Amino acid sequence: MPYTIGLDYGTNSARALVVDCTTGRELATAVVDYPSGHQGILLDPADHHLARQRPADYLYALERATKEALTAACAADASFSPQQVVGIGMDGTGSSPLPVDANNRPLADQPAFSNNPNAQCWLWKDHTSIPEAAAITQTAREMRPQYLAKIGGTYSSEWFWAKVWHCLKVDPAVFDAAHSWVELSDFVPAVLAGVTDPTAIRRGVCMAGHKALYAEDWGGLPDKEFLTALDPKLAALRDRLYDVAYDASAIAGNLCPEWAAKLGLPAGIPIAIGEMDVHYGAIGCGVDEGTLVKVIGTSTCDCAVVSAEKTVADIPGICGIVKGAILPGYFGVEAGQSAVGDIFKWFVEGVLGDASLHAALTEEAAALKPGQTGLLALDWNNGNRTILVDQLLTGLLLGQTLYTTKAEIYRALIEATAFGARAIVDRIREYGVPVERIVCSGGIAEKNPLLMQIYADVTGCEMRVSRSAQSCALGSAVGAAVVAGIHPDFKTAQAAMTGLKDLSYRPDPANQAIYQELYALYRDLHDAFGGVTPSASLAHVMKDLLAIKARQCR
Amino acid sequence: MPYTIGLDYGTNSARALVVDCTTGRELATAVVDYPSGHQGILLDPADHHLARQRPADYLYALERATKEALTAACAADASFSPQQVVGIGMDGTGSSPLPVDANNRPLADQPAFSNNPNAQCWLWKDHTSIPEAAAITQTAREMRPQYLAKIGGTYSSEWFWAKVWHCLKVDPAVFDAAHSWVELSDFVPAVLAGVTDPTAIRRGVCMAGHKALYAEDWGGLPDKEFLTALDPKLAALRDRLYDVAYDASAIAGNLCPEWAAKLGLPAGIPIAIGEMDVHYGAIGCGVDEGTLVKVIGTSTCDCAVVSAEKTVADIPGICGIVKGAILPGYFGVEAGQSAVGDIFKWFVEGVLGDASLHAALTEEAAALKPGQTGLLALDWNNGNRTILVDQLLTGLLLGQTLYTTKAEIYRALIEATAFGARAIVDRIREYGVPVERIVCSGGIAEKNPLLMQIYADVTGCEMRVSRSAQSCALGSAVGAAVVAGIHPDFKTAQAAMTGLKDLSYRPDPANQAIYQELYALYRDLHDAFGGVTPSASLAHVMKDLLAIKARQCR
Repeated sequence: MPYTIGLDYGTNSARALVVDCTTGRELATAVVDYPSGHQGILLDPADHHLARQRPADYLYALERATKEALTAACAADASFSPQQVVGIGMDGTGSSPLPVDANNRPLADQPAFSNNPNAQCWLWKDHTSIPEAAAITQTAREMRPQYLAKIGGTYSSEWFWAKVWHCLKVDPAVFDAAHSWVELSDFVPAVLAGVTDPTAIRRGVCMAGHKALYAEDWGGLPDKEFLTALDPKLAALRDRLYDVAYDASAIAGNLCPEWAAKLGLPAGIPIAIGEMDVHYGAIGCGVDEGTLVKVIGTSTCDCAVVSAEKTVADIPGICGIVKGAILPGYFGVEAGQSAVGDIFKWFVEGVLGDASLHAALTEEAAALKPGQTGLLALDWNNGNRTILVDQLLTGLLLGQTLYTTKAEIYRALIEATAFGARAIVDRIREYGVPVERIVCSGGIAEKNPLLMQIYADVTGCEMRVSRSAQSCALGSAVGAAVVAGIHPDFKTAQAAMTGLKDLSYRPDPANQAIYQELYALYRDLHDAFGGVTPSASLAHVMKDLLAIKARQCR
Repeated sequence: MPYTIGLDYGTNSARALVVDCTTGRELATAVVDYPSGHQGILLDPADHHLARQRPADYLYALERATKEALTAACAADASFSPQQVVGIGMDGTGSSPLPVDANNRPLADQPAFSNNPNAQCWLWKDHTSIPEAAAITQTAREMRPQYLAKIGGTYSSEWFWAKVWHCLKVDPAVFDAAHSWVELSDFVPAVLAGVTDPTAIRRGVCMAGHKALYAEDWGGLPDKEFLTALDPKLAALRDRLYDVAYDASAIAGNLCPEWAAKLGLPAGIPIAIGEMDVHYGAIGCGVDEGTLVKVIGTSTCDCAVVSAEKTVADIPGICGIVKGAILPGYFGVEAGQSAVGDIFKWFVEGVLGDASLHAALTEEAAALKPGQTGLLALDWNNGNRTILVDQLLTGLLLGQTLYTTKAEIYRALIEATAFGARAIVDRIREYGVPVERIVCSGGIAEKNPLLMQIYADVTGCEMRVSRSAQSCALGSAVGAAVVAGIHPDFKTAQAAMTGLKDLSYRPDPANQAIYQELYALYRDLHDAFGGVTPSASLAHVMKDLLAIKARQCR
């Protein structure tokens, strides 16, 4: 019986999952919190844009989570042995690049840099690089419009080049000391494979794709003329990065003896190319053409695929359409909301100061009808990743009276994220990406039927939940099963190893009609504050909300 | 030594104050909560616009508060005797009309109506009559534009005719059973004077003024042709109301033997004409030309006076410019914010659910610089009384990130009310009402230096606090002292009986500059959502707030 291990590096912790390649049975799992910072994140009280992580935490979690999962697997099934593990897959947040030395060791491991936030991993949600992202967009608009067309029109402060350039600007000592920069999801596989030369790392096209502006069309990474226009040092760095990036049909390497011994696994087993967490998550949810996968966590990532034999137009505001980024042989289409679970967490923990309130608020919010709160919110507390691609947007709540309750606000925040989800579905459909159903993954999807029903009512799509509670790790394990040769391709591997829960949330026509009205108001706010229709009137919004509320309270 | 009693009917309780007419010394006071409903207010969970009060609560509070205050006065000063009380003054919220029978008894006292909310007093903040207010505005626009010019252009759902008409529409049985309707501040003096015929009640011009569309210019209340256009039954009611209304130089009557016995006071002492709470409050704060008085409570009322010898233009959005409404011999100018304390209370009690948090939030908010929150709010949770005169507006909070704290929101809400205050000051100045300083009254002004400093920085005016913590009741006592002949006029009486605390809050130029920028953004939101400039762009607002925040965090 062959098994694979899927590793999933989330925002606050890492997980290892031991999976039976034949059935998808999840034999055992273990989660390890990153020990540093606030819930694993290094913050700066003076700058809410900053979010970094200590690279050493990744290796700490790698060893502990894997060993704990293997121990638990042995305990769960006496016939299991770590020697049956035939491959390892890994996914991580992104773009989360970290500076390394010439031996592929994190700069942050050196005493001189260990407490310097700029020498750490720049977590996906770090938004310190907003000026650089804007300058990259501007330069590309002038010199390389084809770059922008592939990434939805705007380069993001969450992405590779903005972060690396910001580091160069604010902390040249770190930039100069770095031999190369490696994405988290390329770093861990390379460590497992014992790669000690950063230029020898086999990088995933998933991260390279739009985040590092990599495309076969223009011969890989952005050309040196373009990079020189940003800063000549970035052009020099290009030589110390990579020329080719790989999709998930390739292997990143084979488990090196040192890490085989550390983890108690057979040396030499294949390690799958690392992908972004939600991309392997999409695979773990059974993504195929017509199925949009939403991995709902602190933020949301939406993934769809379209056969590489078709032509997919560039889609304004959609950050990534990259061949092979999710499934080999398909264009991967990636979108996302900068904050979903994080918004609920902010309101309940940050404002109300009581994490235990989620359940009671959900119950109270569920007793309300659509429109009954009289409230409307924008889901921009962490900016807007899709379809506005603007990190300088912030949250908005509108419609409060003197009687507005916290449960009403909670519901309005859920609805805001649903409206944000719909804006994405509408946009990609408009450009020919089929969306027939939405499969969700993540704790919120499993635990919050209210949210799922609201999403069904707002988007008009059937909402399903992935059978696995660990879709990302499962997808990584699927990738490992493919590179280990257990299954001939991803389609076969997904059929064997993934599935859906029986639960289905279908749109309620009456609720859909109300949400259609509310969504139109959301779009009025969205377009006005997002700069899409800067001269639309908003004087009707509060009155319309009161009118809808009055109807729904009857 | 002559004393007067000032009675002040607030939203949740009534107060009696025993005042030495020679020095203004406040010998004793007593407060009695209205026993019915939620904090004295009868609510309807299905309609947040509804707010009523039980008329019997007013007489219950009248007797208890007066007797308790007299008992306390005897205890405080052995030389005091109730026989030294030479007059009574009274103020109350408004417009708060209640239906009475032909004997001036509240309809709500009859068993058939006792549990009918429409037979109770319609509290000032009841907003059920929005459609009727809009129809009155529309009819006046067509038939009697001069009515609108006097009230700032829009009739309010908080005012007399809208409420009475709404009652007629939704509950004709109550309307038909009512012989007349009496404002709270006319009702209590009439009861004390033993008036048993509603048409014999001497009504105050303060309430009659804009709220009942009374003006000498057109011979008192609106003419029957106009009222008939609304509903013929309203025209018929006109005959059972009043032809003349009085300013505070008149007396409402003399204490009747029955109530003299109940209260233990000399029968026959004069009772001053009732005024709206904040109008007597303005007098208690020493209002004169150049001084704007702000009584800051659940809502805010702003009062200014301009000599009746001058010409005062009608001011758009300012609800009342009425000769004699505050001080005899002056035009009274009244404006106000529909919610101030109520907004803080809503956030802390209604949302955060912990009334004890006010102090800690204030302390934390005080440590922030202007603009440091990155937030901007509209103070419209209870609509906008001035200068938009629109009850169908609601609250707005903008600029939230995932790190926004409750203290930051609290500060943003205080700032929102300061911006609302500035909109009023700017508007009345623009039309020639001098504002050199602002004198505040109310617990918030006394207890919250942060709020006072923010108001100084936002308005650019010196902020002072009335010496008396009970300015409304004190103003009523001043009115009583004048009608009792202790002082020849209000100017003399105010000089003897009122004063300011030593505290002064002066604008800080650096903060003023930041608030100037924030106020411009507030006006962008205010004008867009309020329908003033429906086509202005708002795409810059979030970005400007972040830029100001970044500067202030440095």
